[in-house]
Amino acid sequence: MTEHELNGLFQPKGIAVIGASNNPLKAGCIIINNMIKGKFPGKLYPVNQSEENVAGLNTYARLSDIDDVVELVVLITPASAIYSIMDDLDERMASKNDVRFIVCAAADYAETKTEEGIKRQERLMQAKDKYGIRIIGPNCIGVIDTVSRVNTTFVDTGVSEDRFGPPGGISFISQSGSVAASILAWGASKVIGIRYNKFISVGNMADIDFIDLLEFLEQDPSTKVIGIYMEGYQNGKQLIKVMGRIARKKPIIILKVGRSSKGSVAANSHTSSMSGSDKVYDAAFRQYGILRVEDLWELLDTLQAFDKMRLPDGNRLFVLTQAGGPGIYCSDEISKYDFIETPMVSENTKNQLKETMPRMAAICVPEGYADITASATIRQHCDSLRYVLMDPSVDGVCFITVVTPFLPSAQLGKELSDTYWSLDEKYRKPVYFCIMAGEAVIPCRRELEQTGLVTFDSPTEAVKAAKNMIIYNMKREKETQTGQ
Amino acid sequence: MTEHELNGLFQPKGIAVIGASNNPLKAGCIIINNMIKGKFPGKLYPVNQSEENVAGLNTYARLSDIDDVVELVVLITPASAIYSIMDDLDERMASKNDVRFIVCAAADYAETKTEEGIKRQERLMQAKDKYGIRIIGPNCIGVIDTVSRVNTTFVDTGVSEDRFGPPGGISFISQSGSVAASILAWGASKVIGIRYNKFISVGNMADIDFIDLLEFLEQDPSTKVIGIYMEGYQNGKQLIKVMGRIARKKPIIILKVGRSSKGSVAANSHTSSMSGSDKVYDAAFRQYGILRVEDLWELLDTLQAFDKMRLPDGNRLFVLTQAGGPGIYCSDEISKYDFIETPMVSENTKNQLKETMPRMAAICVPEGYADITASATIRQHCDSLRYVLMDPSVDGVCFITVVTPFLPSAQLGKELSDTYWSLDEKYRKPVYFCIMAGEAVIPCRRELEQTGLVTFDSPTEAVKAAKNMIIYNMKREKETQTGQ
Repeated sequence: MTEHELNGLFQPKGIAVIGASNNPLKAGCIIINNMIKGKFPGKLYPVNQSEENVAGLNTYARLSDIDDVVELVVLITPASAIYSIMDDLDERMASKNDVRFIVCAAADYAETKTEEGIKRQERLMQAKDKYGIRIIGPNCIGVIDTVSRVNTTFVDTGVSEDRFGPPGGISFISQSGSVAASILAWGASKVIGIRYNKFISVGNMADIDFIDLLEFLEQDPSTKVIGIYMEGYQNGKQLIKVMGRIARKKPIIILKVGRSSKGSVAANSHTSSMSGSDKVYDAAFRQYGILRVEDLWELLDTLQAFDKMRLPDGNRLFVLTQAGGPGIYCSDEISKYDFIETPMVSENTKNQLKETMPRMAAICVPEGYADITASATIRQHCDSLRYVLMDPSVDGVCFITVVTPFLPSAQLGKELSDTYWSLDEKYRKPVYFCIMAGEAVIPCRRELEQTGLVTFDSPTEAVKAAKNMIIYNMKREKETQTGQ
Repeated sequence: MTEHELNGLFQPKGIAVIGASNNPLKAGCIIINNMIKGKFPGKLYPVNQSEENVAGLNTYARLSDIDDVVELVVLITPASAIYSIMDDLDERMASKNDVRFIVCAAADYAETKTEEGIKRQERLMQAKDKYGIRIIGPNCIGVIDTVSRVNTTFVDTGVSEDRFGPPGGISFISQSGSVAASILAWGASKVIGIRYNKFISVGNMADIDFIDLLEFLEQDPSTKVIGIYMEGYQNGKQLIKVMGRIARKKPIIILKVGRSSKGSVAANSHTSSMSGSDKVYDAAFRQYGILRVEDLWELLDTLQAFDKMRLPDGNRLFVLTQAGGPGIYCSDEISKYDFIETPMVSENTKNQLKETMPRMAAICVPEGYADITASATIRQHCDSLRYVLMDPSVDGVCFITVVTPFLPSAQLGKELSDTYWSLDEKYRKPVYFCIMAGEAVIPCRRELEQTGLVTFDSPTEAVKAAKNMIIYNMKREKETQTGQ
């Protein structure tokens, strides 16, 4: 297979940032600094007519002044400067002919629906028409690649650590820059940070659009699951067809807004995209097993589940809890989805639990549910999880514990993790760990997450991720059975 | 009005903790230390037969050994010790006759449905029968009063600051100890911590139950809004009647689990309480304007909204956003509730916005919606909020901003807060501030919250709180109109 053209966007030789700045309140400053903080190993060329250097790097007055190879140009200047910048690009291409990609972060282009905005976007697009340069944006925050460490965004996640690494298998496409920024910030503030692979804010999609990126991610071996925030798209039918094809190989999780008529009008005035009939989208997503989520939290949690867990073999979900209240709450959440079934564990499993759990424990009352009570020791937590996972009727487990102050939080996490990973591979079924609550249980959650397990804030989030994985699995199984 | 009997529970003279311990992994250690850390100003008497002092306090071998007045006894011993403790209590009452309340935190009583458990609970209840001592529990984590600084719980919220103060107007009753602990931990990890007034974990409700506590909170002048986590209750009809009466004066926000048949069986095996027909409860809650919430997050956010905001005058909610994507998302969320109306602001308001906002801003496309765009300055944020709040058609505002790194976070919060509080009182309508996203925007959120404003993680949470306040207001207005 020949290399996909868009590969170059994520690992360019030389990046020029036009509009780079030393003013910390300017996006052109943050982009350069994000790239330096993120240890981008390649060459970085700030372009700025009035500063001699930016963030310690030699600065160039014009793009055409840079001697070395520049494959990616990031534009973070006011949109009105587009004409002179494009002239500068013409000059560069005449002599060097090296630029292959432009990320145009600035807004005030065609999305404004003004004559001037449309004219600017047309001028930008000449780069594609004349030289075949591929363009992301305008009106976006650009791209991140956690492997090559390209990061054209001006997002400050507020976390001090380098939370972009190590890379995971989640690639994300967002039609809104601010949703993209929010998702990055929320992801970074999770227990160990959501691990993206590629992250793309597409903005106006003057050139590179959903379909281009999806087809690229379809082939990208390091992308395991695809997340999308979408407002609308002109060629919905074609998009659904592509998504449907990809969803057979890689899960696609989508948050599509503009459900309501009001939201739809707002979407149109935002990215100038018709959101289309929401019902049509909804039906198509269902038909193709594309997972539509309700909110931003479900989006993040589901992406993380697909990235880190294996798919369940079936739809039988056991609730194993150390706390009655949250266990009941979890059962209620599961009951919202009639396709999730109750596992009927064997008498042997029941006896194992009855013999080893605290005397007050409620084992399989009701079926598929065990409350090992707040008096359960770490050993009992681990044993109960092992017994349940080894039962052939169980396809997945919601495991809930409200860590009491007399249960050492980190040790609990470590021993649960050891228990899980010491099981035979066939028993390492999906476990949705709800470790409650708040900051006191971070040590426990961190221990679990560091070994690749996934933890959730509460049963609400755990059950949503579980049902999404079950839906995806059922859809794929059905396709296999019917030979579709 | 004579003082309510239960007042004494929250401001007892002298607290004895039977089962106090120096072992940091025992609840009896954490209770004593929580009380000390929380600066409980009254007298504290650890009771323990083998230690000479606990946490630096003189320790007593028996309750009857304490010379001073003890009005509240906390039991955190294994349930099997109940007989000797009750003998000790008999002795004390014969000589001092001072104990008025018992918080029995230990489990393994009647909720186990064993003969022994029932017998223990009967022995505990003799304290009530013989001496009129009122009992909380067993099988609970007891009570907190943020004013008197009584705290019988063994919850470690994981936050270092003293997050229980200053007190707010939220009083909370939980039937599950672990849900109570989780809620305390989540509340403490919020931007400035949820401010409770009284917090009660009721457990088995052998004596003091929902109705007792609700009737007390009804009269309690410092309780502004009541939160409940409920699994079930024997006398549901009576409970609903009391709740309905109280809801006319103070909002009641309830998370009732056991919706599903499976959850209901689990609830019965947990606190031995029949959850009753969920549909009956649901209809009754609606009829009386008792606000039933879907999940723990909605519970916390709604409590905080009622505690800190004034009620809206009507149901017209304006969406004012600095970011297109989250604005559309917010419109979708609002559209889920057909009773929320779109405000039609005046031409004057529209012109004010058009003249002062960035040129790219979308003003009232659609009606009741304005996107001031990411290029909006702090001044423009503040002005737009002021114009919208001053429009007579607006009853409340969802205000969304995705703080870009070039918008100083704390300053934005401070100026927004100044703008709000400098308005005439009549314009200080409910504003649901969504400041996105993650840790980077904490300075902004803190500035707003410190002055009494409420911030939310995303439009999902903001809209849920808003719709709950609107429902409550509509219900109360209808009652006033019909003279009910």
